[in-house]
Amino acid sequence: MIYFDNAATTRPYREALDSFVKVNEVYYANPSSIHSFGGRVEKLIAQSRKQIAGLLKVKEREIFFTSGGTESNNLAIKGTAIQYGSRGKHIITSKIEHPSVSNTMKQLESLGYSITYLDVDETGRVDPLDVEKAIQEETILVSIMHVNNEAGAIQPIKEIGSILKDHSKILFHVDGVQAFGKISLSLPDDHIDLYSISAHKIHGLKGAGMLFVRDGVNISPLLSGGEQEGNVRSGTENTGGIVSFAKAMRMYMEESRDHLEKMKDIQRYLREKLVTIAGVRIHTPQLDSAPHILNFTIEDFKSEVVVHALDQHEVYVSTTSACSSKKSKPSQTLLSMGVGEDLADRSIRISLSFRNTMEEAERFVQLLIKETAQLQKTMRRSR
Amino acid sequence: MIYFDNAATTRPYREALDSFVKVNEVYYANPSSIHSFGGRVEKLIAQSRKQIAGLLKVKEREIFFTSGGTESNNLAIKGTAIQYGSRGKHIITSKIEHPSVSNTMKQLESLGYSITYLDVDETGRVDPLDVEKAIQEETILVSIMHVNNEAGAIQPIKEIGSILKDHSKILFHVDGVQAFGKISLSLPDDHIDLYSISAHKIHGLKGAGMLFVRDGVNISPLLSGGEQEGNVRSGTENTGGIVSFAKAMRMYMEESRDHLEKMKDIQRYLREKLVTIAGVRIHTPQLDSAPHILNFTIEDFKSEVVVHALDQHEVYVSTTSACSSKKSKPSQTLLSMGVGEDLADRSIRISLSFRNTMEEAERFVQLLIKETAQLQKTMRRSR
Ligand SMILES: Cc1ncc(COP(=O)(O)O)c(C=O)c1O
Ligand SMILES: Cc1ncc(COP(=O)(O)O)c(C=O)c1O
Repeated sequence: MIYFDNAATTRPYREALDSFVKVNEVYYANPSSIHSFGGRVEKLIAQSRKQIAGLLKVKEREIFFTSGGTESNNLAIKGTAIQYGSRGKHIITSKIEHPSVSNTMKQLESLGYSITYLDVDETGRVDPLDVEKAIQEETILVSIMHVNNEAGAIQPIKEIGSILKDHSKILFHVDGVQAFGKISLSLPDDHIDLYSISAHKIHGLKGAGMLFVRDGVNISPLLSGGEQEGNVRSGTENTGGIVSFAKAMRMYMEESRDHLEKMKDIQRYLREKLVTIAGVRIHTPQLDSAPHILNFTIEDFKSEVVVHALDQHEVYVSTTSACSSKKSKPSQTLLSMGVGEDLADRSIRISLSFRNTMEEAERFVQLLIKETAQLQKTMRRSR
Repeated sequence: MIYFDNAATTRPYREALDSFVKVNEVYYANPSSIHSFGGRVEKLIAQSRKQIAGLLKVKEREIFFTSGGTESNNLAIKGTAIQYGSRGKHIITSKIEHPSVSNTMKQLESLGYSITYLDVDETGRVDPLDVEKAIQEETILVSIMHVNNEAGAIQPIKEIGSILKDHSKILFHVDGVQAFGKISLSLPDDHIDLYSISAHKIHGLKGAGMLFVRDGVNISPLLSGGEQEGNVRSGTENTGGIVSFAKAMRMYMEESRDHLEKMKDIQRYLREKLVTIAGVRIHTPQLDSAPHILNFTIEDFKSEVVVHALDQHEVYVSTTSACSSKKSKPSQTLLSMGVGEDLADRSIRISLSFRNTMEEAERFVQLLIKETAQLQKTMRRSR
């Protein structure tokens, strides 16, 4: 198998899964229970929080565990909207956000909030000056993703942060789900108030995620209840998910240090080889794009046809974002970048992990060349 | 170890944990991905949904997977409040709900909703006639728990359901987290629109739960995004959690069939023996209470002291509800039942699973007698 769909989800690390099992076998008590068994479980969560805080160079009390990236984004945005709705109801975002942001914005619109959706340029990037221009008296939040999940563009988060530094009443949320561990960032220094991370995108387990909430920032809870996670996120803690998230995060950051250059080499290799195939158009920008994503179209073929051809060989790639790939709408991200509807509708996404190898990339290219030649033949015959 | 804190959380079934591991090792793809690997994972979720629908005798499309009981309750209540807020802003609930319901109500109050909190009688039960009397033109929702998590009272859900049958515009939500698998109920027949279940209370894994939403009932999503779960609950599915939830539910219902009478015998035995200890007052009603909960006070001792004494022997019981047990506020449920503040503050909760044995109950009683005698001596000496 060649698994090139790591932006959709990753294979859990053996060690992360082992931690999960250990916790559920041995430390299954409720961390809120006052007996010593509960106390031991509470300690595991505290340790995980401390480990993650250390890795992110933030305070322990700035970390709030959630069920995943979607919940983190919803919590950040709706939590801000509810908390500060009486101060203002205007929010700024971009046209290329993940549905967990864009559909949250749509829901808020239906509840009376006003949303500015910023354009992106042909490389998929928001202009920081556009953020500045969009600010109103009523603005309470700016939410811009760090790395786009479909085309891979890196957004100018630092620049936006330094603009927002002078607007102390506007919170800055960054969806870091595709960026974390691959794009460097300093949460304490880059003027970010809220940052979302999902465990299953970094070889942790599905069902775990976190939201960084800068000290001093208050947001309304989305899940009210037993006041776990500082009353920002109630619900019996998924201890196994949390402990394995901390483990995965540490391993992922180590792999990033050791293998980021290899990942970039593989991406570069794929880009160079793909353009030699007739009709290939690459959408992922050459500069300032994430190392793991390569989005392209082969003009002659529907993306489903290519995905299916590769599938026969246990080679897995994606069409657009996994979350919305079941609906055959052309990628909103690509359309916003000025890619024509026809090409956008036929786009294919390769997404790498640190464990993918150059050999896999070579096999992939050979296979794609062979399969597209075959498909060309079939097409010519059926004309 | 004697684990008598099963209302807080249960030990995962070996088989449920194995399913989780298998899914995460082999079927780790994103179920929304269009390749065949994603398709196989999607199928696993569909199978789990089908199994659960079969067990609950409801339709597959009436089941919505969530991250747990707290999320299910928040989704049911806030989803209704948002969806029907323009029609009316009045909600009826009781004074003894779990914090995931009562704190949700408080948050809605701060957003302009008006909430009626119904009293309970000395057995901890809501009077269905009080529900009827509380109904207003503006009422959009009634939310009453099935089994109270602190004292164990079973609420008259069928009776309330048949009252609400004549009020087609009012939704009926039931928090079934402590009831499911122990108290019989027919979701299709008892006029329930929304029913919450949590996996980790029935030997499934933390991080999984579900909300039954009757066909034809629309609620607003709490987590917006990639439109998973019929767009009622977005977010990459915790496939392992879902598959192991289905497995746990099947096993739990089988154990319930085989061991419910044994559980009742153990509860009866504990009740009979506990009352022979000096100063013991039992709060769990004799009739119409859940088989797994026994709440009592030993007049002379703070609950922490008793929990700690038992803890030394690896015997685990709880004070009040786990979720709020870290705050030393007397149980709201017991106060509402007319138990004095002093006694309520000193209450202890035993909660059983189907795997607890009569031998454990016997050892527990002996230990409690010994430890309380010891504590009495220490107290007398220190006077
Ligand atoms: C950029 C981005 N944000 C948010 C999410 C949602 O995260 P999760 O899958 O953990 O709900 C995803 C993944 O689908 C994503 O790629
Ligand atoms: C009656 C009741 N409702 C809801 C919950 C919350 O469920 P979860 O722990 O899955 O968030 C609990 C458990 O604490 C409960 O006992």
